[in-house]
Amino acid sequence: MSEPGPVQVADSELALLTDLYQLTMLQAYWKEAMTERATFSLFFRKMPSSRRFMLACGQQYAAALASRIRFTPAALECLDGMGRFDSAFLDWLAEWRFTGDIWTLAEGTPVFPNEPLLEVDAPIAEAQLIESLIMNLVQLETVLASKAVRIVLAARGRPVIDFGLRRMHGIDAAVRGVRAYRAAGLAGTSNVLGGLRHDLPLSGTMAHSYILAHDSETEAFRAFARHYPGTTLLVDTHDTLDGVRQVIALLRDEPELRVDAIRLDSGDLGELARDCRALLDEAGHERIKIVASSGLDEFKIARLLEEGAPIDAFGVGTRMGVSADSPAIDLSYKLVEYAGIPRVKHSTGKVNLPGRKQLFRRQGDAGHYIGDVIARRDEMFDDAEPLLVPLVRGGKLNTTHMAAADQARERVEQTLPRLPEGLRRLEPPTSSTEYPVVLSETLQRLAAS
Amino acid sequence: MSEPGPVQVADSELALLTDLYQLTMLQAYWKEAMTERATFSLFFRKMPSSRRFMLACGQQYAAALASRIRFTPAALECLDGMGRFDSAFLDWLAEWRFTGDIWTLAEGTPVFPNEPLLEVDAPIAEAQLIESLIMNLVQLETVLASKAVRIVLAARGRPVIDFGLRRMHGIDAAVRGVRAYRAAGLAGTSNVLGGLRHDLPLSGTMAHSYILAHDSETEAFRAFARHYPGTTLLVDTHDTLDGVRQVIALLRDEPELRVDAIRLDSGDLGELARDCRALLDEAGHERIKIVASSGLDEFKIARLLEEGAPIDAFGVGTRMGVSADSPAIDLSYKLVEYAGIPRVKHSTGKVNLPGRKQLFRRQGDAGHYIGDVIARRDEMFDDAEPLLVPLVRGGKLNTTHMAAADQARERVEQTLPRLPEGLRRLEPPTSSTEYPVVLSETLQRLAAS
Repeated sequence: MSEPGPVQVADSELALLTDLYQLTMLQAYWKEAMTERATFSLFFRKMPSSRRFMLACGQQYAAALASRIRFTPAALECLDGMGRFDSAFLDWLAEWRFTGDIWTLAEGTPVFPNEPLLEVDAPIAEAQLIESLIMNLVQLETVLASKAVRIVLAARGRPVIDFGLRRMHGIDAAVRGVRAYRAAGLAGTSNVLGGLRHDLPLSGTMAHSYILAHDSETEAFRAFARHYPGTTLLVDTHDTLDGVRQVIALLRDEPELRVDAIRLDSGDLGELARDCRALLDEAGHERIKIVASSGLDEFKIARLLEEGAPIDAFGVGTRMGVSADSPAIDLSYKLVEYAGIPRVKHSTGKVNLPGRKQLFRRQGDAGHYIGDVIARRDEMFDDAEPLLVPLVRGGKLNTTHMAAADQARERVEQTLPRLPEGLRRLEPPTSSTEYPVVLSETLQRLAAS
Repeated sequence: MSEPGPVQVADSELALLTDLYQLTMLQAYWKEAMTERATFSLFFRKMPSSRRFMLACGQQYAAALASRIRFTPAALECLDGMGRFDSAFLDWLAEWRFTGDIWTLAEGTPVFPNEPLLEVDAPIAEAQLIESLIMNLVQLETVLASKAVRIVLAARGRPVIDFGLRRMHGIDAAVRGVRAYRAAGLAGTSNVLGGLRHDLPLSGTMAHSYILAHDSETEAFRAFARHYPGTTLLVDTHDTLDGVRQVIALLRDEPELRVDAIRLDSGDLGELARDCRALLDEAGHERIKIVASSGLDEFKIARLLEEGAPIDAFGVGTRMGVSADSPAIDLSYKLVEYAGIPRVKHSTGKVNLPGRKQLFRRQGDAGHYIGDVIARRDEMFDDAEPLLVPLVRGGKLNTTHMAAADQARERVEQTLPRLPEGLRRLEPPTSSTEYPVVLSETLQRLAAS
C-alpha cells in the first residue's frame, strides 16, 4: 500500500458487508423465481458457562440498518468484476429493497437460550441477504452489554467507567461498544468519539507519561490541578503512598487547588485503597475519592468490595472490552418457515424451533419475572407480556419502537431488579431451573411433528 | 433514535477516536509550553500462556493513519461544546499535524514480550495524541493474525478459509481482520467487503436455509450445481451420509453437472469425512474434495489431521475471529524518553525499558533465527538484523516501507520456517529459553541506572 485506504465502511458499502454465499444464494433464488416469504429467527443455543443471562442489544440498531441497505452503482460494479453474477441479476439487485417485517426484542432485554432476539419475515432473497450484517452487529453489542452489566452489578452502585478503547477489537467495537455500555448502565467512557456519538458522559484522568514528562510528580500534579480544577490525579507512577503524600502536601501548600479524586492503577488495589484512604482522611481530605483501574473484571471488583476496599469508582478496560471469559456467543440465524410451511434443520442434540415465534415473559408478585414461554407468533397468554415488537413493517421503521431503543438503559435498570435474585449473582448457575423457559404446547406439538 | 446514525467512523473523525485524557494532557502540555521531543514505545509484557510467538500486524497501517490525523472544524466544534478546552488551544489543534518519526516492525514480524513493535519520536503533544488509535488498531490485527497463523500451521498446507464475519466484534474487526488473515496465510474469506478491500480471494458455499427452502435436498443440490458449475454442496442438513448419497445419485443422473466439493458442518467431522470419502471414492468421485467447518480451531484441526481425517480444506469462524483463547494482549504504549532523557515508570515486577530502542534478530546457520537483542536505537551488531524501520519521517510516509507492508504474507511465509521448530508447535511452551530475547549491555546498564 502506498497509503492505507479508507479506515472504515460507509453506509453505501453495507450491501457488501455480507458473506459471499448470501449473494450466490440470492442469485440462485432469483434464477429459480423463489420469491415466497420466509421467516428467519435469531437466537443463541447455549448460555456461556460463566453466565446466568444475556442482555440482548444491537438488534434494533441492526434491523434499522439492514432495512436501509441498497446496492450502489459502485457495489454493483464490484460484484460484476467477480464474474459470478449475471448482468440481469445485477440489474435486479440495483432495485433490491428490504420490504419485509422485522420483529425484535427491545434493546436491553435479558434473554436465555433458544429465545428469539429477532425474527425477519420477508421474501426469502431479502431475509437471506441481511443475515451476516445483522449477526455481526447483534453479536458485538450483546456480547459487550452482557459482560458490562455483570461489572455494573458487581460494583453495587459505584460508577463504572469504560477505559477499553485501546484493547477492544477495532474501531467499530470501541465506538459502538459504548452504545452497549450505555444500555448496561456504565457511568462514563474515556472514548471521546464513542461517548459523543452514543451519549455517555466522557471521563478521563491522566497517564503515567504526563507524570514522567515532568521533572517531579509534585510538579506534574500541581500543573494538572491548576489546569483542571476538580481533577483526578494518578498517584502510582513511582510509589503509590508517596504519591498520595505529595497530593496532600500540594493541597496544604496551595489550598486553592481542588482535587476530587486519586487514581490507583497498579499493585494490590484493596490494600492501597485502604492505606490511601487513611492518609487522605487523616489530612482532612475525606471528600477526595478513590478511583481504581488495572486488570479489573466483575470478580475482582466484587472481591475488593467484599473486603471493604474504600474504592468509589472503577475504570474497566480489557476484560470488559473483549468480554474475556466469553468473547463470542453462538448466535444463529435460522430459516424456520418458507412459503407458509414451518421448516427446521434436524440436528442431533440441537434444538431448532420451527415457525414464526413470539416470546412471552410471565410476571408474578410485585412485577417479578418468573419465567418465559417461547410460543408461536399468533398465540396469546393472559399472564404474560409479548416481547417481540414489529420494528420494521413493510420495509419501514416504526418510529415509536425506534425511539424506545434509546430507553435501553432505563429498561435495564428497571428490569434487573425484577429478575430472580439468583440471576444477578456472578457465579455460574448451579441449576438450570432458576429461570424456567418453556415452549408453549402449540409450539411443542409443531416442533415434535 | 429515529434512525440510526452513520454506521462507521470517517477519516475526518479519527482525531476524536482517542481517550479523553489524551486531549486534556495535550492542553496541559500546550499550556505548559512542553514542546520537547518524546519517545513512546509500543510493546506487550507477557506472552499469552497458550502461545509461543505473536505476529505483529497493523503497526504500519496504524502509523500511516496516525500520521494523517487532522482536527476538522466539525471535530473542533465537538470539543468546544465540552467546555473543557480553551479557544486558543482549539485554534492550535486546528493546526495540529504529526511532524515526528514513527519506527515500526514490518507487518507480519514474529515478536516476543518487551520487544518494541513501534516507537514514536515526536514533540510530546503529537506522540501522546496518537496513542489510543495506534493501540486499538495494532491490538486488533496482532491478536487476529497471531491466532490465525496457528490455525494455518495446524492445517499443514490445506487451505483455511475465514468464515468469521458474523461472530467477530463489529464491522471493523471483520473487515480489517481480513487484512490480518491475509498476512497470516489464510487462503480465502467469505467476507465480501473484507476480501475485496484487502485482496484475499472470496469463497463461499451455501447455507442450510437454501436446502430447507427447497422441497428436497436433491432439488436444492441440483439447482445450485446447475447455477454454479464446480460448486461446493452442503451435505449435513438432514443426514450427512444420506446427503452424500444424494450428491452421488444426482451426478449419476446428470453427469454434465460438476461438483468440486462437499461441506460438512456438524457432527463428528473426522468420522464423517472418512465415511463421505469412502462413499465418494466408491462412486468414482475421488476428485470431489471435502471441506469441514463447525467450531474449529488449531487444536481441533490438528487432531483431525493426526487421526487421518481426509479433509481438504477448513472453514474457520468464531474461535479464530475472536481469538477465543486469548482475545486481547497487554499492549502498552509507554513514554521512554523526554527532552533527551530516558524515563520509565518503575513498577514492581514489570520490565520497563528506557530510551529509544532498536530490535535486532540474530541469524544462525541457513538463515535460522536464533534469538533477539533489544538494544538502544543507535547500536549496531555485526551478526544481527535491525528490525525497526523509519516508516514515517518528519510526518511523511516512507513509500518504500509502505509498499513493503503489502508483502506481509510473503514475509510470514518466509519467516516461519526460519524460527526454531518448537515455536511452531501448538502446545504452550515448557521452557522460556526456546527463543532467547536479551537486552544489549548498553540497554542493561541504562535500565539499571
